[in-house]
Amino acid sequence: MMDNEGFCNDNYHNSSSDDELVDISDVTMDFNEDVPPLDRDYSTGHCKADRRLNNSPKLLDLLDDTVPGIGTYEDFNTIDWVREKSKDRDRHREITNKSKQSTLALLFSIIDAFSGWLLMLLIGLMSGALAGGIDIAAHWMTDLKEGVCLNGFWFNHEDCCWTSNETTFKERDRCPQWKSWAELMVGVNEGASAYVVSYFMYVSWALLFAFLAVTLVRAFAPYACGSGIPEIKTILSGFIIRGYLGKWTLIIKTITLVLAVSSGLSLGKEGPLVHVACCCANILCHFFTKYRRNEAKRREVLSAASAVGVSVAFGAPIGGVLFSLEEVSYYFPLKTLWRSFFAALVAAFTLRSINPFGNSRLVLFYVEFHTPWHFLELIPFILLGIFGGLWGAFFIRANIAWCRLRKNTCLGHYPVLEVLLVTLITALLAFPNEYTRMSGSQLISELFNDCSLLDSSRICDYSGSRTGSANVTVTNGLADRPAGPKLYTAMLLLALALIFKMFITVATFGMKVPSGLFIPSMAVGAIAGRLLGVGMEQLAIYHHDWNVFRGWCSPGADCITPGLYAMVGAAACLGGVTRMTVSLVVIMFELTGGLEYIVPLMAAAMTSKWVADALGREGIYEAHIRLNGYPFLEAKEEFRHKTLATDVMRPRRSGPPLSVLTQSGMTVEEVERLIIDTTYSGFPVVITNQSQRLVGFVLRRDLVISLENARRHQEGVVSVSAVLFSECDLPESTNTPPAVKLHSILDLSPFTVTVHTPMEIVVDIFRKLGLRQCLVTQNGRMLGIITKKDVLKHMAQMANRDPDSILFN
Amino acid sequence: MMDNEGFCNDNYHNSSSDDELVDISDVTMDFNEDVPPLDRDYSTGHCKADRRLNNSPKLLDLLDDTVPGIGTYEDFNTIDWVREKSKDRDRHREITNKSKQSTLALLFSIIDAFSGWLLMLLIGLMSGALAGGIDIAAHWMTDLKEGVCLNGFWFNHEDCCWTSNETTFKERDRCPQWKSWAELMVGVNEGASAYVVSYFMYVSWALLFAFLAVTLVRAFAPYACGSGIPEIKTILSGFIIRGYLGKWTLIIKTITLVLAVSSGLSLGKEGPLVHVACCCANILCHFFTKYRRNEAKRREVLSAASAVGVSVAFGAPIGGVLFSLEEVSYYFPLKTLWRSFFAALVAAFTLRSINPFGNSRLVLFYVEFHTPWHFLELIPFILLGIFGGLWGAFFIRANIAWCRLRKNTCLGHYPVLEVLLVTLITALLAFPNEYTRMSGSQLISELFNDCSLLDSSRICDYSGSRTGSANVTVTNGLADRPAGPKLYTAMLLLALALIFKMFITVATFGMKVPSGLFIPSMAVGAIAGRLLGVGMEQLAIYHHDWNVFRGWCSPGADCITPGLYAMVGAAACLGGVTRMTVSLVVIMFELTGGLEYIVPLMAAAMTSKWVADALGREGIYEAHIRLNGYPFLEAKEEFRHKTLATDVMRPRRSGPPLSVLTQSGMTVEEVERLIIDTTYSGFPVVITNQSQRLVGFVLRRDLVISLENARRHQEGVVSVSAVLFSECDLPESTNTPPAVKLHSILDLSPFTVTVHTPMEIVVDIFRKLGLRQCLVTQNGRMLGIITKKDVLKHMAQMANRDPDSILFN
Repeated sequence: MMDNEGFCNDNYHNSSSDDELVDISDVTMDFNEDVPPLDRDYSTGHCKADRRLNNSPKLLDLLDDTVPGIGTYEDFNTIDWVREKSKDRDRHREITNKSKQSTLALLFSIIDAFSGWLLMLLIGLMSGALAGGIDIAAHWMTDLKEGVCLNGFWFNHEDCCWTSNETTFKERDRCPQWKSWAELMVGVNEGASAYVVSYFMYVSWALLFAFLAVTLVRAFAPYACGSGIPEIKTILSGFIIRGYLGKWTLIIKTITLVLAVSSGLSLGKEGPLVHVACCCANILCHFFTKYRRNEAKRREVLSAASAVGVSVAFGAPIGGVLFSLEEVSYYFPLKTLWRSFFAALVAAFTLRSINPFGNSRLVLFYVEFHTPWHFLELIPFILLGIFGGLWGAFFIRANIAWCRLRKNTCLGHYPVLEVLLVTLITALLAFPNEYTRMSGSQLISELFNDCSLLDSSRICDYSGSRTGSANVTVTNGLADRPAGPKLYTAMLLLALALIFKMFITVATFGMKVPSGLFIPSMAVGAIAGRLLGVGMEQLAIYHHDWNVFRGWCSPGADCITPGLYAMVGAAACLGGVTRMTVSLVVIMFELTGGLEYIVPLMAAAMTSKWVADALGREGIYEAHIRLNGYPFLEAKEEFRHKTLATDVMRPRRSGPPLSVLTQSGMTVEEVERLIIDTTYSGFPVVITNQSQRLVGFVLRRDLVISLENARRHQEGVVSVSAVLFSECDLPESTNTPPAVKLHSILDLSPFTVTVHTPMEIVVDIFRKLGLRQCLVTQNGRMLGIITKKDVLKHMAQMANRDPDSILFN
Repeated sequence: MMDNEGFCNDNYHNSSSDDELVDISDVTMDFNEDVPPLDRDYSTGHCKADRRLNNSPKLLDLLDDTVPGIGTYEDFNTIDWVREKSKDRDRHREITNKSKQSTLALLFSIIDAFSGWLLMLLIGLMSGALAGGIDIAAHWMTDLKEGVCLNGFWFNHEDCCWTSNETTFKERDRCPQWKSWAELMVGVNEGASAYVVSYFMYVSWALLFAFLAVTLVRAFAPYACGSGIPEIKTILSGFIIRGYLGKWTLIIKTITLVLAVSSGLSLGKEGPLVHVACCCANILCHFFTKYRRNEAKRREVLSAASAVGVSVAFGAPIGGVLFSLEEVSYYFPLKTLWRSFFAALVAAFTLRSINPFGNSRLVLFYVEFHTPWHFLELIPFILLGIFGGLWGAFFIRANIAWCRLRKNTCLGHYPVLEVLLVTLITALLAFPNEYTRMSGSQLISELFNDCSLLDSSRICDYSGSRTGSANVTVTNGLADRPAGPKLYTAMLLLALALIFKMFITVATFGMKVPSGLFIPSMAVGAIAGRLLGVGMEQLAIYHHDWNVFRGWCSPGADCITPGLYAMVGAAACLGGVTRMTVSLVVIMFELTGGLEYIVPLMAAAMTSKWVADALGREGIYEAHIRLNGYPFLEAKEEFRHKTLATDVMRPRRSGPPLSVLTQSGMTVEEVERLIIDTTYSGFPVVITNQSQRLVGFVLRRDLVISLENARRHQEGVVSVSAVLFSECDLPESTNTPPAVKLHSILDLSPFTVTVHTPMEIVVDIFRKLGLRQCLVTQNGRMLGIITKKDVLKHMAQMANRDPDSILFN
C-alpha cells in the first residue's frame, strides 16, 4: 500500500544537480546495501525512462512564460517574496552564465549590474527636481492669496521685491511692485475695508484652491489623496495596489499638493513628497527590465525612494534613510541601505541646486543655537515629551474616529463639500491670527528661531533688547531680557493657534486632498514648546534666586533658549503621532548639525513614545492601515500569545474538509468544479486523498490560466481529460483523451509547519520570509493551510479587534 | 495500516488553546458529517483519556528546568534563535500574567520592562569611562617613551606643561618640567648623543610595552588578542565562545590595549574598543535575569554594545549605530536600533565629560574646512577611491596569507618572539621619521588639518604664508601659496611613511596583542590623500592657465584643500579594507559635521568598494572569520547556485541511512547505542521506521542529559526500559519495566523543507530564522537533515573553497 500511494514519486537518488556536485564515491556505491526497505522505495518510480533528469526548481519554468500571466498577481493581493526573489536570482544566474559566452552579453551583464545605481541617480534627480518645483509653486500660490506682483504675476512676494530696486534691506518685504488685493481693490492697505477685502480674498483663494484640489483628485486620480505613507508601507510589505504609484497619481498628486498646501489647510507637504518620490521610482522602474518584471526588486527601489522623499522634504538624507529603514520599509537588505543613501544625497543636492528657499540651505528649518542647555532643563523637555505623547494618542484616536465616521455615514458621499467646509472654517478662523495665517513651515521656522538683537518679530519683543529696561542688569544684549508687551500678545495668539491647530488637523488629515501631517504635528509641538520655553525664560528672569536656577541661570546669564524648547516640542509631537524614534532624532539633528542638542531631543522623543504607547500601541500610519483593512504584518509588534498553528489553520475544527487536488486522479472537470466551488487562492496537491501526503502547492490563478490555456490550445482536451501534477504520463491508452500536464505550475517546495508550531513562530516566518501562505502538516499528513489573511485575522482577534477588518489577502 | 502507524498521534481536534479561541458554533457541530474517512482518522488516538488537553509548545516545558542543563548549549556551538526567542516570549508572558495578580508582580514587570534601558545606560557609562581611561593612559604612556615629567611622573607631556607656569602660548609643548630621556641622561636635548639616547629609549620602551602586552595576553586571556570584531560578528550570529566576552578578557584587553598602542606598533585602539564595550555589556548582562538566561536577548545587547564601541572610538554615535547595523549585527530588531542609539549617546557624552583629549570635542579628529570642493575634484577623489580599493584588496590578501603562514608553520609557536621582532623593526624604522614616530591618530589629525596662517608644522610650510613670495599675487593669506622647502621634505617623509605603514600593518594585524586596523588603514589613506592633495594644489598654483583649473582655480583663489584629500583618502582605504559603506560615510560626516563633504566621501567609498570587491568579495573581518573556520552565514552575500536541498542534506546519496529514533519502539539501550555510535547533534523522531513520518526532533545534548537523569533518579529504569516520545503510556503491564518518557524534550515543530527546495531558499531560511538544522522531507516522509555546517560547507564548495575549512557547528 505504501508503494501504491506514491506511484510517481520523484526519485531524488537519480536527480543530479546542474552544478555537478555528484561525487564519484557516492555514485559507484552499491544500491543494495543494508538500507531499510522504505528508505528507498520512493526511488522505484514508474516513469523513470521518460523523465529528464531535471531537478531544477519549478520556479524556473515560470521564466519561460509559456503561458502568459503565470507568475503574475491580481490587484489587491499579496506577492510571494520567496518566489519573486527566486525569479530574480534565476534571471541573474542566466545573465551571468551568458556573460561568459560573448562580449556583448558581458557588456549587458555589466550594464545590468550598474542599472540599480543608474536608477537611483535618476530617482534622486527627478524627485529633487519635482520637490523643488512644488516648493516654488506652493510659495508663489501661498503669496497669491495675499496679493500679486505687478512686474509679473509669476513672482512671489519675496522675488517680486528682490527684483525691485526700491527695496531696502530693512524692509525687505515692502516694495511698490507688490500689491496686496486690498490695495488693488480699495486702494488702501490698512483700515477696516482693506482688512475685509484681504479677509475675503484670502478665504476665496483658499476655497478655490481646495476646490480645484479635491476635484482634480476625484476626477483623475483617487489614489492621490492623503499622505500615502500607510499605503506605501503596505505596498512595501508586498501588497499590490495597481495605479497607486502610477503616472496619473504622480501628476495629479504633484499639482493638488501645491493647491492643498496653498489653500492654507492644516496640512504639510512632507508626507506626500514620499508618495511623489515613490511614484517617480515606480515610473522609472519601467525602463529597467530587472525592476519592471520583479515585484520584490521593485520594492527595494521603492524603499530607497521613500528615503528620497524625506530627504527632499527636510533636507536630511541620513534621517531619510533611517526613516525608510525604521518606519516604512519591510524588506530592507543592506545593499538597499547604501543605495538609498546615494539616492537621498543626489536628491538633496538636486533640490539645493534648485534652491527653492533662496538661502542655499539644504534643510527646511535651519537653526543655530548659541546657548548650551542645562541638565535641569531635562525636566521641561520631558514635560514636552509627555505633552507630545498625549497629543499623539489623542490625535490618533480622534482622527481614526473621525475617519470611521466619514466611512460609515453619509459624510463620505460628499468629499468635495467636506473639503470646502473644512477649508472655509480653516480660512475663516486662521486669517485673524497671524500665526495661523502663515504657512505651517513658516510658523515652525519662526518658532525655532533664536531671537537675535535685530529680530523685529513679535515673539522676539523683549524689553531688554530695545530699551534699557529697569531693574535688570544687561550684561550682553541677548541675555536676561524680560518679555515686552508684544511678546505677551504673541503668546496669547500662539495659545489660540495651538488650540485651533490641535482640532482642525484632526478633521483635515484623511480628507480627499493630499495631506501630510509632519508639519501640522510639528507646529503643534513647536507652539507648545515655545510657550513653555518663554514661560521658563521669564520664570528664570524674575526668580534668579530660586534654587533650581542658581548657578546656571544667574542674573545676566543667557540660560534658556525658547527656540530649543520649540524644537524639542516639535520632535515630541511628531514622535507621539508617528512613533518614529531614531529617524526623528536624526532628522532633527540634521537640522541643527550639532550633537549638543541630541540629548534633549532624545529625552523628549523617548518620553513621548512611552506615553503614547501606553495609551495605544499604534502610530497614525498603522492605525490608517488597519482602518483600510490592508494586510500588513507589523514587524515591530511581537506576537505574544500562546496559540498554535492548529488554532489558526483552515479548515477549522469542524468546518468542511480541506480542498485538495490529487497528483493524478482528477479530471479537468473535477478541477474546474473545485475552482468554481471555492474561493481559495491556492490548493495543496497530495498524492492520494487517502494518504494526504503533500506533493506541492498550486495557485488558483496559475491553475485557472493553465486550464483555460489547455482547453483553448491543447488538442483533444475535454472535460474528462486527466489532470496530472506529476512529471510522468499515465499508462498509454488510445481510449483516453490526452492528459493536461500541470507539473510546471506546481510549487514543489511549499513552506510547511506542523500543527504544534506556536503561532509566534508562524508569525515570525510569515514576517521574515514574506510568505502568502503556509501549509500545516501533522506527522507528514496535510491537515490545513494558513494564509497571511488568517494570520492577520488571528492577530486581530487576539488583540480584541474585529478580525473581519482585514479585507485583503 | 494507516491507522496502525500512527497509534498515538496527537489529536488536534481535541486540543484547545489557552486563549479561548474556541468558538461555540464549531464545537457544537456534528462530527460525523460527510468528511472523507482519513480526514479524521488521526483524531482517534488511543490514549485520549490519560492526556491533559495541553497543546502548548514543548519549548515551554524547558522553562520548568526539571532537568538541569536542558536547553543550554555547549561551547563552540550555534544557538537556536527560534528556541531562544520562544523562551523569552514565554518568560515575558509569564511576567505579564503574574503582573495582573499582585502589585509586587506588577512592579516587577515594570522593572523588567525598563531593565533593557537601564542596562543600556550602564553599558554606555561603563564603556565611556573605560574608553576615557584607555585614552588617558595611552596618551601618558606614549609620551613616556619620549620623556618624563618632573612635577609628577603621572603627567603626560601636555598636562605637564599645562600645569607649569613657565609655558608660553607659542611653545606650548616646551617647559622645563618636561625632561626628555636624553636631557635626563646626557644632559642635552640636541646633538648626536641625545639622538642616540632618545632612539635607544624609544626602542626600549616600545619593546617593554610590547613584551608586557603579549605576555599578559598569553598568561591570562588568550582571547584578548586581535581586534575582536570577527569573533564578535560570529558571536552575534549565534555562535558560543565561552570566555570571549568575560571579565578576564575585559581586564587584560583594556591593559594590553594601552600597552600595545603605546608601544608604537602600527595598530589602533578603535576595533578593540568594540570588543571592550561588548565585554562590558556581557558582564553587565549577568545582573539582569532577562539577559543572563537568554542567548538571543544577550545578543541584542551585544549589538548595541558594538555601536557603543564605535561611538566612543570616534565620537560618532550615529555612525556607531549604523556600523553595528551594517557591519557587525546579525539579528537587529528596530527596538535594538533605538536602544543602541541611546547607549551610544550616553557613552559619547560620558567620554566627553572625561575629556581625554582636553579639547571638549566629542570626535577623535575634528576638522573644519573653509573651501568648498569643485565638481572636477571628483576625479582625484575617485583616484583615491581606486587606491583605497587596491590597497584594501592587497592588505586582505597579504594579511590572510601571513596569518595562514603563522597558523601552519612553526612561526605560530613563538608569538612573543614574533611580537618583539615586529616591535623592534617598527620602532627602529619608525623613530627616524617624524610621521611614523608620532601615534597613528596624531598623524591622521595632522594630515586632516587645513593649514591656517599660524600653523607652524612642516606640512603647512607654504612660501606665501611666511614671506611674500615672488610672482604670485597673494590676495588672502591662506590662498594660492606655493610649497616651501620644508613641505617638500615633509612630502618625502610622508611617502616613506606610506610605504612603511603599508607593509608593517600587514604583519601587525593578527599578532597576539590587541590590534585594531581602523587607524592604520586610515593613516595609509590619509598619507596618500595628502600627497595627492598637495600635488594637486601645487599643480593648480603653477598651472592656473590650464583649462581644467580655469574658472574655479584662478590665481589668488583658495581652491584645493589638501586636508580634504587626506580625509577622502582615509575613508577610501578604510572602506577598501572593511567594506563598510554607509557607516563609513556617516562616521566621516560626524567628524566634519557638514553635509558638504559627503559627496566626495561617498564617491571615494563607492569606488573603493567596487574596486576591492572586484578583486575579492570579502572584507578583512569576513576573511578572518573564514580563516578561523567559524560558522558564519554572511547576510550580505547572496547564494546564487542552482542546487537543491537534496544535494546538501545528510545522509548523502548512498551513504548510511539517516539515524532516526522512533516514537515508541525503542529501548533505553538502543537509544544509548545510537548516541554512542553517532556524533550527530540531534535526531529526528519518526512514528515508525517503516513509514518515516516525522513526529519531531530531539537534540543529542538534551537526550543524553535526560537519559542520564532517568537512569540516576527514576526508579526501575533498566536497559530494556522503553523510551517514549509520545505523550501517552504504553499499555499497562506488570512485567515491563517503567518507560522513560521524553515527550518534554521533543521539539514538535521542527523546521522542514522538501527535497525540491532550492538551496537559495534554504540558505535564506537559515539566515533569517537563525536555524541550527532543518529536516528534509519528501511527500511527508523524513529523508534527511541539513545543519548550518552543511549549508556553510556547501556554500564553500560552490565558491571553490575548501569545505573542510568550516570547523564548528
